Amino acid sequence: MSFELVVLGAASATPTSNNYTTSQLLKMREHYFLIDCGEGTQKQLRRSRIKFSKINNIFISHLHGDHFFGLVGLLSSFHLLGRTTPLTIFGPPKLKDIILMQFRTAGTFTSYPISFKVTQHKVPQVILETDSYKISSFPLKHRIATTGFKFQEKAQKRSLNKEYADKLNIPICDYHRIKDGKDWISDNGIIIPNNQITFDPPEPLSYAFASDTRYVPETAKYVQGVTLLYHESTFCEDKLERAKQTMHSTAMEAARVAKEAQASNLLLGHFSARYRNLDQFETEAKVVYQNTLRAKELYNYKVTQKGIKVKNLRAIKNEE
Amino acid sequence: MSFELVVLGAASATPTSNNYTTSQLLKMREHYFLIDCGEGTQKQLRRSRIKFSKINNIFISHLHGDHFFGLVGLLSSFHLLGRTTPLTIFGPPKLKDIILMQFRTAGTFTSYPISFKVTQHKVPQVILETDSYKISSFPLKHRIATTGFKFQEKAQKRSLNKEYADKLNIPICDYHRIKDGKDWISDNGIIIPNNQITFDPPEPLSYAFASDTRYVPETAKYVQGVTLLYHESTFCEDKLERAKQTMHSTAMEAARVAKEAQASNLLLGHFSARYRNLDQFETEAKVVYQNTLRAKELYNYKVTQKGIKVKNLRAIKNEE
Repeated sequence: MSFELVVLGAASATPTSNNYTTSQLLKMREHYFLIDCGEGTQKQLRRSRIKFSKINNIFISHLHGDHFFGLVGLLSSFHLLGRTTPLTIFGPPKLKDIILMQFRTAGTFTSYPISFKVTQHKVPQVILETDSYKISSFPLKHRIATTGFKFQEKAQKRSLNKEYADKLNIPICDYHRIKDGKDWISDNGIIIPNNQITFDPPEPLSYAFASDTRYVPETAKYVQGVTLLYHESTFCEDKLERAKQTMHSTAMEAARVAKEAQASNLLLGHFSARYRNLDQFETEAKVVYQNTLRAKELYNYKVTQKGIKVKNLRAIKNEE
Repeated sequence: MSFELVVLGAASATPTSNNYTTSQLLKMREHYFLIDCGEGTQKQLRRSRIKFSKINNIFISHLHGDHFFGLVGLLSSFHLLGRTTPLTIFGPPKLKDIILMQFRTAGTFTSYPISFKVTQHKVPQVILETDSYKISSFPLKHRIATTGFKFQEKAQKRSLNKEYADKLNIPICDYHRIKDGKDWISDNGIIIPNNQITFDPPEPLSYAFASDTRYVPETAKYVQGVTLLYHESTFCEDKLERAKQTMHSTAMEAARVAKEAQASNLLLGHFSARYRNLDQFETEAKVVYQNTLRAKELYNYKVTQKGIKVKNLRAIKNEE
């Protein structure tokens, strides 16, 4: 039940020989969520050895090619691999037309149902909610309609101190109420406070994805208190003007959002190909906000309350 | 002025960790022609170190995703790299709509003009012709409208035997007529036959691309006498029935076309991912037609009248 993010692509604009454009896979409460889908995402999913048939929900932030040109290929591969599980895609209005036009032209009807859910970029909204998690979209400021996405675990029930419960001879039929936080009252009227017979559940984790966007203070409001914030940082401070022109952010601006949002950790990405040394992004951001990492492709980021554990997925398998 | 084919992708249906779907780059008379454009083609172009800004004509055989899902990304990258040279795309009718819809949604107008030329799949037609070469499309038989493409050099002028011309004191102003094949008449009326003062030009080379298609005898007619024929062979003979059902060819069927067409060489490709040992395709085809090679990705095939020279482009650079 770990909370993990796999970075599949961290480059902006166009793929290069070695880099892929934006895509990430989030594992939350055993569900797989794909966030953006640049060209070649299906290849990166294979290379990361993720069982990508487990993806049932895809989130597309906006319709610039580096965030969705790999989607039609992935959907097509799902079909060719015989998928039958329904798939839901959250994204801007025109996405459905673009995808369906290509399937229609190819004379293909997917082997599985696809449901397109239109996001709207002017106000935050809850787009998917279960007992276990809540997923929202929130407005970003870019050249075209763009949303970020926030993934929040819900608090789990308290867990029983089984040893102490046995000592007190608490009957099993009372467990349910105790896990809900109720005190226990024995037959002879003694009240045992809940916190004496239960342990705190792990604190819920959360992740927010903010790409593409220029720096706006509102972003911090939408992602307040998340455990991990991914914020685009297309440029370093040397290209602040270019960032403004193109409605992107610098590493320091991303760090400012993380600080204002009191996010526990910041992950930078969407790097312009003009930078050879990507560590520069991390260095600059850390001036503003210390708990910063830069996204590396085919790296796994395990999110905990104590920090982020980073693992290189390339190291565990044969590469191309 | 060599005649070379670079195989960028040779897999069918879906890309895998290590393989790309159909795309090829043909160099003919110093022009670069891109044939089909599966997902990730721009990455393969970069990895092959081809100056892909030199591509001015793109040919799309049909609108199954493994033949064109990389096109919109490539066109987008041309734009982001500031291309201004016009580009012509030959392909089925709906291609223009699919591409333009995506650009419109992104609010992007390319920095260079694109001209879409509609191919038609029922009869062969010349689609591009200059003094130096001729390019035609020809019908194939697949599940949706599909054409092959034939690239033919035109005969060059005869080249002058300079040494002998000097000996005869032939004035420079007569060179042009001699290169056109005319005899030379000296001032005192002596006729020197053209073949005594010129050399034969190199014989024109030609390439035909036939994918996707089931085996049909007509294909041989369209590609008669080409120096190199690429014919899809999605399956080996063990899957002949599957080939028929899906309107694809086996390696032996591809070889039969090469034999009937009296092609000098055959290149196989579009391999189904179910085959681990791709040499099997070559082995089976050679039973019917000896001059057979199987396409390998990031390999360069230099076409000459004497045969095909094969070079591994991966060997000359750092890989991912």
